[in-house]
Amino acid sequence: MGTGTRPVIGAAGIQFAKGHGTGNDFVVIPDLDASIELTAAQVAAICDRHNGIGADGIMRVVHAAKHPEAHDQADSAEWFMDYRNADGSIAEMCGNGVRVFTRYLLETGLSSGSAVPVATRAGLRTVDVVGDDLRVDMSPARFLGTEHATLAGRAYEGTHVSMGNPHLVVHVTEDELAALELFREPQVDPAVFPNKANIEFICPTPTGVRMRVYERGVGETLSCGTGACAAGAVGLGGGQGTATVDVPGGRLTVTVDERTLWLSGPAVMVAEGRFHLR
Amino acid sequence: MGTGTRPVIGAAGIQFAKGHGTGNDFVVIPDLDASIELTAAQVAAICDRHNGIGADGIMRVVHAAKHPEAHDQADSAEWFMDYRNADGSIAEMCGNGVRVFTRYLLETGLSSGSAVPVATRAGLRTVDVVGDDLRVDMSPARFLGTEHATLAGRAYEGTHVSMGNPHLVVHVTEDELAALELFREPQVDPAVFPNKANIEFICPTPTGVRMRVYERGVGETLSCGTGACAAGAVGLGGGQGTATVDVPGGRLTVTVDERTLWLSGPAVMVAEGRFHLR
Repeated sequence: MGTGTRPVIGAAGIQFAKGHGTGNDFVVIPDLDASIELTAAQVAAICDRHNGIGADGIMRVVHAAKHPEAHDQADSAEWFMDYRNADGSIAEMCGNGVRVFTRYLLETGLSSGSAVPVATRAGLRTVDVVGDDLRVDMSPARFLGTEHATLAGRAYEGTHVSMGNPHLVVHVTEDELAALELFREPQVDPAVFPNKANIEFICPTPTGVRMRVYERGVGETLSCGTGACAAGAVGLGGGQGTATVDVPGGRLTVTVDERTLWLSGPAVMVAEGRFHLR
Repeated sequence: MGTGTRPVIGAAGIQFAKGHGTGNDFVVIPDLDASIELTAAQVAAICDRHNGIGADGIMRVVHAAKHPEAHDQADSAEWFMDYRNADGSIAEMCGNGVRVFTRYLLETGLSSGSAVPVATRAGLRTVDVVGDDLRVDMSPARFLGTEHATLAGRAYEGTHVSMGNPHLVVHVTEDELAALELFREPQVDPAVFPNKANIEFICPTPTGVRMRVYERGVGETLSCGTGACAAGAVGLGGGQGTATVDVPGGRLTVTVDERTLWLSGPAVMVAEGRFHLR
């Protein structure tokens, strides 16, 4: 331990690293040979911000060939991102998560190069190194018409966008954006959004949009990868181009071309160590 | 690293451990010879729950003899608790913090025995091992009369208690306690509380009180050591005895005897590793 003191966790602890992309933070657990079985309760315990390490989600690093949900991708990607939400539930993909996952692969030497294939439950993703940023193909945004959200007794008109998950993107003024009280969940029509929606409030900036987001079931967050994609696509008016998306946790960039939508931004590792799973 | 991968932080990182007492969580940094200088901005970066490790505060472990604020306590205590709040400001003492600090000393072998002296900015504290719990002498509560707090347009009468810092302890019913919306700060009379106050709402339980707390400048928290002391003292009606204090993060116990007030409860270490200070 460097100071000559006994470790408080020791070899019995589970190895982890922590990183984030614009404040969307993740615990990465290397379990290359798929030998660790994490229950939903254990995932929740690790993600607990006071009693655990604290994170928005956990990503286990597993050889794609050794995981039943990924061995069909093993010819293209060496590593499978086994993503879990902070409540222990399973998620298919996470735009900021896969970028942090890739940063971990690159910093540990598990992967190298400027285009890193990652196996996910949503299929193969390739993450590109672009300067200090990591960029991932998020598939195109789908525009599904005009809908409404209600917050503090006021109705807001917005654009229904699907990034695989449902979003409602609402234009407000800069002053309104700063003043929004997002400690309560904006309400949406359950006939349109049976599983609710992530609500992005945006205002224009010189190079794109500024965004605040209420993630369904979570609350206001510092960043939301798919939310930034939806906001950027709306900021681009449904057309092609590049838009910066300033979120409370930093800046992401969304690029739309004739084929797809790219999410780009920082992803950094901040700590590593061992966790005592009780 | 156990898996044969490169470390992502490495020896350049700062060694840390993380622990908590009833959900009040702390990063412990062993800096035995006082060689690390942490700025307020660096403390805040480490305590940031999304971009850092995340904690309510940081405690540096330093030889008392090697720290100018503690060398006069070095005859009595080997270790000085250099406590910082999450915003980087300096604090004198923290009831849950000193218990986590002591757990760290015991688990690393830096201290041993059933009564551990700890040098703090508030003077020498002795932390006792009582079964699985750690107990600290918090000095007596001082009762300072009846005052009021206002929350959501309603005035609540409470007892002004000093534990070195100011508290207002308010009795409510069990249903009221559960329904309180503590995402806004209760307002107190600035003529009485020029530095505001921590507000504890309590209701009786068979063995003591249940408490929710709004910490000034922070918000509702899972636990507050001095708040539990104030709540327990009020629960005991200002007399001697023992009262359990159930906080959202667990159970603390307050004991008042003819001389002082003791705070007792769990303190556990959950992780350790290295942090990349940017």
